[in-house]
Amino acid sequence: MTPPQAALFGAVDLGGTKILSLAVAADGDVLGADRRPTEAHEGPQAVLQRIAESVLAAVRHAGPGRTLAAVGLAVPGPIDFERGVVADAPNLPGWHDVPVARLLSDMLGCPVVLENDANAAAFGEWRLGAGQGARHVVYLTVSTGIGGGLVLGGQLYRGANGAAGELGHLPLVEDGPLCGCGARGCLEQLASGTAVARRAREMLGRNGAPVLARLAAGDREITAELVHQAAEQGDLDAREIIDRAGRYLGSGLVAFVNIFNPDVIVIGGGTAKIGAMLLEPALAELNTRAFRIAREHVRVVPAQLGDRAGALGAAMLAQTALTPDRPRR
Amino acid sequence: MTPPQAALFGAVDLGGTKILSLAVAADGDVLGADRRPTEAHEGPQAVLQRIAESVLAAVRHAGPGRTLAAVGLAVPGPIDFERGVVADAPNLPGWHDVPVARLLSDMLGCPVVLENDANAAAFGEWRLGAGQGARHVVYLTVSTGIGGGLVLGGQLYRGANGAAGELGHLPLVEDGPLCGCGARGCLEQLASGTAVARRAREMLGRNGAPVLARLAAGDREITAELVHQAAEQGDLDAREIIDRAGRYLGSGLVAFVNIFNPDVIVIGGGTAKIGAMLLEPALAELNTRAFRIAREHVRVVPAQLGDRAGALGAAMLAQTALTPDRPRR
Repeated sequence: MTPPQAALFGAVDLGGTKILSLAVAADGDVLGADRRPTEAHEGPQAVLQRIAESVLAAVRHAGPGRTLAAVGLAVPGPIDFERGVVADAPNLPGWHDVPVARLLSDMLGCPVVLENDANAAAFGEWRLGAGQGARHVVYLTVSTGIGGGLVLGGQLYRGANGAAGELGHLPLVEDGPLCGCGARGCLEQLASGTAVARRAREMLGRNGAPVLARLAAGDREITAELVHQAAEQGDLDAREIIDRAGRYLGSGLVAFVNIFNPDVIVIGGGTAKIGAMLLEPALAELNTRAFRIAREHVRVVPAQLGDRAGALGAAMLAQTALTPDRPRR
Repeated sequence: MTPPQAALFGAVDLGGTKILSLAVAADGDVLGADRRPTEAHEGPQAVLQRIAESVLAAVRHAGPGRTLAAVGLAVPGPIDFERGVVADAPNLPGWHDVPVARLLSDMLGCPVVLENDANAAAFGEWRLGAGQGARHVVYLTVSTGIGGGLVLGGQLYRGANGAAGELGHLPLVEDGPLCGCGARGCLEQLASGTAVARRAREMLGRNGAPVLARLAAGDREITAELVHQAAEQGDLDAREIIDRAGRYLGSGLVAFVNIFNPDVIVIGGGTAKIGAMLLEPALAELNTRAFRIAREHVRVVPAQLGDRAGALGAAMLAQTALTPDRPRR
């Protein structure tokens, strides 16, 4: 239990279209929340001002007399963790080498810790969600893209430049589809929601996937969710597309299990909500192809924190930064 | 400098055919060595006796008056690190759940630390070889198989069961060659010495690789070294086989750089001695396909410790186990 007047942690997930702020107690309890549009077109300074207002609104929702101990901010792109600088954010125009931690700290009068959103979500799921109690966690978010984060030995693993954990960019198929990263055949191009939708459009172009064609009539956008819906209604082509994406996802799981021998793999993200139709073929790959010792040990579980994972993880990282010597689990 | 009468660390690499023992000072200086055949057919008890004799012989070579502080033993197969038990060793008949640390400790009167050979070699290259001074090291040994080890944040990363770092078992090609691990298209099946030799035999079966065919006349065994020799003598088919293996190795490097954002990748093993013809196409893949931040940071370097890496790493792990609180680099 948190004493009523205790300091709170601010938790922010900065997205290309919206800002989510939470006021979080030291034990992870969410006591207040605020959502507002990012209005990214207004540029970094205006967005930072909006983040500060959003955090303070979340704290007000938590009740009177609260103070901010620190703020954790999850951002969509690579960061320089040591300096608190957003290096680059593809979805936020004008964000190049912005010293976000310092600017926001000046506005809010408390320390601010930055983290890449997938890393923050991995830490959040480990501290408060599906990875609790584990020592080694691989976190995978399967959505329009595939992102990842690593908690190894009870610490977020960032690599030499904070760029580790790009689990969606595992090259799986020689001469496969070109990826935004410059490589071909990355996991992301084979098992993400975007990959499922692309293969479905190709199938429709060959006059396949009849149920999907009916559902998509009237120029409805082809999404992984729509492909799943068609598959549930008996569209065998749609089902094969999801099954194939699942098998590729399984090849990724084989790689991660053989490389990390993790306790838990946490799978989150919108496309993962397809559920069994995507995950069962993935688990079948894992269970036949990964090293026995490692595959018998690992648990593959759905994420628990939903779209709060990044913000909560950032807040827990801010808390850890304030008390670096607290015992790790 | 080590005082002349200081305690030594015993360093042992147990292989399927030979035992290498070194007497090592605290700073890694090798002061004595012994090699003898494993005679694995005699079973674990006899082999352990032979290891003890070999370690004592290495210590005698270091000069009079020396004592053993601890012994590190690198073994070819999965181990239970906490209990000091060899779980399984495919090249050593009868080695299942052998409590090697306890048995050898009783024979030698000092603590014994076990480690898997690729993990030990990774630690050795980090402490005394090509990975010195780095925080995050990926070690890859390219030989008849492909093995790996990980030093992350200045510590050997073992995973939940000591089974982490199986870098040769990254699935790279859907429906590729069947691997001993049960999967298909593993890196090991595409870029190891065995893979090069297999593709060369296929090419000879199609009446290709004329220079190799001449070199291999008289039933000489087809090895990666022989394929390299043919390529150096102008055999374009042989050259293409090595180039292709190199590109697959490069896909592995892309994966490891995107996943770990390491400071250094150390490449050792007999097949890696092919050198530029194998490594240049690998580096070309890495430099065009991996994430920019990570690929611009990483150095890919040859291993420095040769066939002593495993033994030296095991000795340094034994030293670390004796003094767990010494500061990590």
